[in-house]
Amino acid sequence: MNKMGLFSLRLCTGTLVRWAGLYPHSIRACTGMTKLQIDEEVAKLLELKAQLGGDDGKHAFVLKTAKGTRDYNPKQMAIREKVFNTIISCFKRHGAETIDTPVFELKETLTGKYGEDSKLIYDLKDQGGELLSLRYDLTVPFARYLAMNKITNIKRYHIAKVYRRDNPAMTRGRYREFYQCDFDIAGQYDPMIPDAECLKIVHEILSELELGDFRIKVNDRRILDGMFAVCGVPDDKFRTICSTVDKLDKMSWEDVKNEMVNEKGLAPEAADQIGEYVSMQGGMDLAEKLLQDLKLSQSKQACAGLTDMKQLFSYLQLFRVTDKVVFDLSLARGLDYYTGVIYEAVLTQSSPAPAPPAQQNGAVGEEGVSVGSVAGGGRYDGLVGMFDPKGRKVPCVGVSIGIERVFSIMEQKAEASAERVRTTETQVMVASAQKNLLEERLKLTAELWDAEIKAEVMYKKNPKLLSQLQHCEDTGIPLVAILGEQELKDGVVKLRTVATREEVDVSRAELVEEIKKRTL
Amino acid sequence: MNKMGLFSLRLCTGTLVRWAGLYPHSIRACTGMTKLQIDEEVAKLLELKAQLGGDDGKHAFVLKTAKGTRDYNPKQMAIREKVFNTIISCFKRHGAETIDTPVFELKETLTGKYGEDSKLIYDLKDQGGELLSLRYDLTVPFARYLAMNKITNIKRYHIAKVYRRDNPAMTRGRYREFYQCDFDIAGQYDPMIPDAECLKIVHEILSELELGDFRIKVNDRRILDGMFAVCGVPDDKFRTICSTVDKLDKMSWEDVKNEMVNEKGLAPEAADQIGEYVSMQGGMDLAEKLLQDLKLSQSKQACAGLTDMKQLFSYLQLFRVTDKVVFDLSLARGLDYYTGVIYEAVLTQSSPAPAPPAQQNGAVGEEGVSVGSVAGGGRYDGLVGMFDPKGRKVPCVGVSIGIERVFSIMEQKAEASAERVRTTETQVMVASAQKNLLEERLKLTAELWDAEIKAEVMYKKNPKLLSQLQHCEDTGIPLVAILGEQELKDGVVKLRTVATREEVDVSRAELVEEIKKRTL
Repeated sequence: MNKMGLFSLRLCTGTLVRWAGLYPHSIRACTGMTKLQIDEEVAKLLELKAQLGGDDGKHAFVLKTAKGTRDYNPKQMAIREKVFNTIISCFKRHGAETIDTPVFELKETLTGKYGEDSKLIYDLKDQGGELLSLRYDLTVPFARYLAMNKITNIKRYHIAKVYRRDNPAMTRGRYREFYQCDFDIAGQYDPMIPDAECLKIVHEILSELELGDFRIKVNDRRILDGMFAVCGVPDDKFRTICSTVDKLDKMSWEDVKNEMVNEKGLAPEAADQIGEYVSMQGGMDLAEKLLQDLKLSQSKQACAGLTDMKQLFSYLQLFRVTDKVVFDLSLARGLDYYTGVIYEAVLTQSSPAPAPPAQQNGAVGEEGVSVGSVAGGGRYDGLVGMFDPKGRKVPCVGVSIGIERVFSIMEQKAEASAERVRTTETQVMVASAQKNLLEERLKLTAELWDAEIKAEVMYKKNPKLLSQLQHCEDTGIPLVAILGEQELKDGVVKLRTVATREEVDVSRAELVEEIKKRTL
Repeated sequence: MNKMGLFSLRLCTGTLVRWAGLYPHSIRACTGMTKLQIDEEVAKLLELKAQLGGDDGKHAFVLKTAKGTRDYNPKQMAIREKVFNTIISCFKRHGAETIDTPVFELKETLTGKYGEDSKLIYDLKDQGGELLSLRYDLTVPFARYLAMNKITNIKRYHIAKVYRRDNPAMTRGRYREFYQCDFDIAGQYDPMIPDAECLKIVHEILSELELGDFRIKVNDRRILDGMFAVCGVPDDKFRTICSTVDKLDKMSWEDVKNEMVNEKGLAPEAADQIGEYVSMQGGMDLAEKLLQDLKLSQSKQACAGLTDMKQLFSYLQLFRVTDKVVFDLSLARGLDYYTGVIYEAVLTQSSPAPAPPAQQNGAVGEEGVSVGSVAGGGRYDGLVGMFDPKGRKVPCVGVSIGIERVFSIMEQKAEASAERVRTTETQVMVASAQKNLLEERLKLTAELWDAEIKAEVMYKKNPKLLSQLQHCEDTGIPLVAILGEQELKDGVVKLRTVATREEVDVSRAELVEEIKKRTL
């Protein structure tokens, strides 16, 4: 970009707001642009700015990953693989298939699905062609996939990265690029059976990962909406009041009420009535009690939700998971697309360093001991219909495992534990104490590879035995196959167990079996 | 966004360019904004525009994935998982760790690494903050990772998607979003040992995937450069002539020569001399012959490359893979960063419908029977140094498996085969022939899940037995556990083998073991 261009860019951008303030009348004469024209103007500006890049003279090249993202090193990957295996095993145990979708979607596929959070979507630069955005979650692409392929029932899981231009809080496991592990059941079924299976899955996964104690809060959007209606919230404020209720896990009731009344204009009496309901927690008994509640039972929606809640708890009893599940009227969840049951799992003690035990009957908003949500989901019966040209609905329910927080906890556990995390699976190191045996080492290593033994060899002509043994110590390789002139003459290999330093001569013919036996 | 907001946005954006044209003097008075201020202005505008959304009325929504991308359905995922397992097993057998890097990098991390192909990089939109691009391959992020973490030796694999704004050719497995499976060895080692292991890995993977016959072409950038030098190519034309030589697998020698002479201005005699060399193929013998070549042996670079090539072949003999490896002077590879040995694997017959057998001694450029490259790589000793603030070099060699083409072939094979690809691993379906047994079915299913049996149950209160059996037929579930009043009374389950329709009564206590036994 030349100096004139740089100059103009600065001029243009600077003027933009100033003229709007200084010369409102003159500017008014310029109205009537179409959205397309606005698009083009902005694109031009951005293009110029991008070209501008490092034109301000030399700047130091910063060796880093993009803000809010991170590399995974081999140790982190080993932990990640273990966690994924646990989760995938669970999904497969429940008969799920898996699909994959592209990392970016047409921008309009994501438009209007995320409410206020839409501003967090990453857009791709317009390089000519389609306007694209990075996926924000796996649920909207799943709905797009179902509508596009006219699929009316499927049970699938999808593990992949999603992207949000949020304020990163990396120590707490909040990144701009992070994994989601989603399990969803689409199809027209009898009420609450697939919903109960989703909760069973959360229970299984959190138990198997051994993250410490947890609780799964359950609620229903219909109960919330019914509650808002009977408390006198105007129809057009349901969603925004719901967003405020959703903050109860981070804010006190006083602050939440304040936001409702002073920011969102709700009558204080309505807020107080909501406050009474959202402090309620229980199980099937609470659903039964609320079905008798004089006020709430006036809402058909609430009654439908409460009847389903009772049914859900009866299935959860059969699944033997009610010990961890709590019907909690303060649970709201932020996303717009939920239509029925919603749930969220929280760890009630941090692990490995346990915090004080959770107060079972702690007041709402006082869950200070919780380390936060590790799974969440719910029913979204309308989303697929938003993509179908004829609006055909496909009821869906699903759950997403908050895997990044799980990684953080597992990593801390690994740090705290004395046991070393192995990053390779190598069974044997092919080594030599003498010089000029590289060719023999390579030949034996290839024989082991061909026999499906995981084997390593040093890429040096004459490595020292000590450095070969040290590599085994460092990386946890359990066996060393040592070659020497004498061994070659005798047709044997000295097989050394690293941990015990015990050595035995094994014939070449029996070596593979011996290694397998010792590394089972 | 309210009407006033929309109005102001249109005003501002429209005015931006107009005032610059109409009132240059007034505007000049407004200069002196910093880059940060520009950022903020643009971010504000974009924010407004994003909120504006689809305000211009309805337009036809197109239900599709982004150009050049695709979803993977469950069947494709099952095939993909199988292929990945084969490849990952091989990488682990060779003692590799794995890492992961973010899908986007700082734009400047990718700048200047890909030569002419840089135009294919996807940039992210500037939404305020860093300028980012989607990764183009896994090699540059790997080099960035090594430099950033000051790692001087590692053997790692990385399987992830990369992005190129290329012309998609989806029937031939060329997409804009595609997987790469990379294996690389970084570190200062004795010559050609890690290089030979990379070729051994290609040999193992292509053999195990049973894609049909293949050949691995090998060459060395130093031999190519030496050849260019002795043929009279000017120094500053090495890279561009190299790019043209790289097209020999798609174009005839006549066309290649034409491009060298008429487009790139090479002397016809130089081109003819190159033509003689690039028609040569062989093994260790050819390396020896060329070391005696009066012209080529004048180049120190070429001699170093040829000596290493001899060494490489001697290791490949120990690894027993020379049957598939050919030293081919026409192999050039497009990327700028290679510094030593380079290689590329091609399938020599398409599978499952075999093409005519490859001509072993076919002239260069006549490989019409090849279905194209399925793996490639080489040595890149300078790349990490480009990232290191002090320019410290970390020698690297690696290979990338062209997994998308492998998927295409495996998919075609699956289509052609009579055997059905299972997309779930479910061992047993918990079913009932009678009504009102939903609760018993759910209870038994949960018992099986808790015993780590992969089990499914229909989400209907009273499904027909036929539809339950049909689901097993459709998805390949081998067993059905049938519950009825009588079975419940007797404490047994009727276990049916779907394939044979054989039924046996099994006690509840023995059910888990029986299912395990029958689905091993």
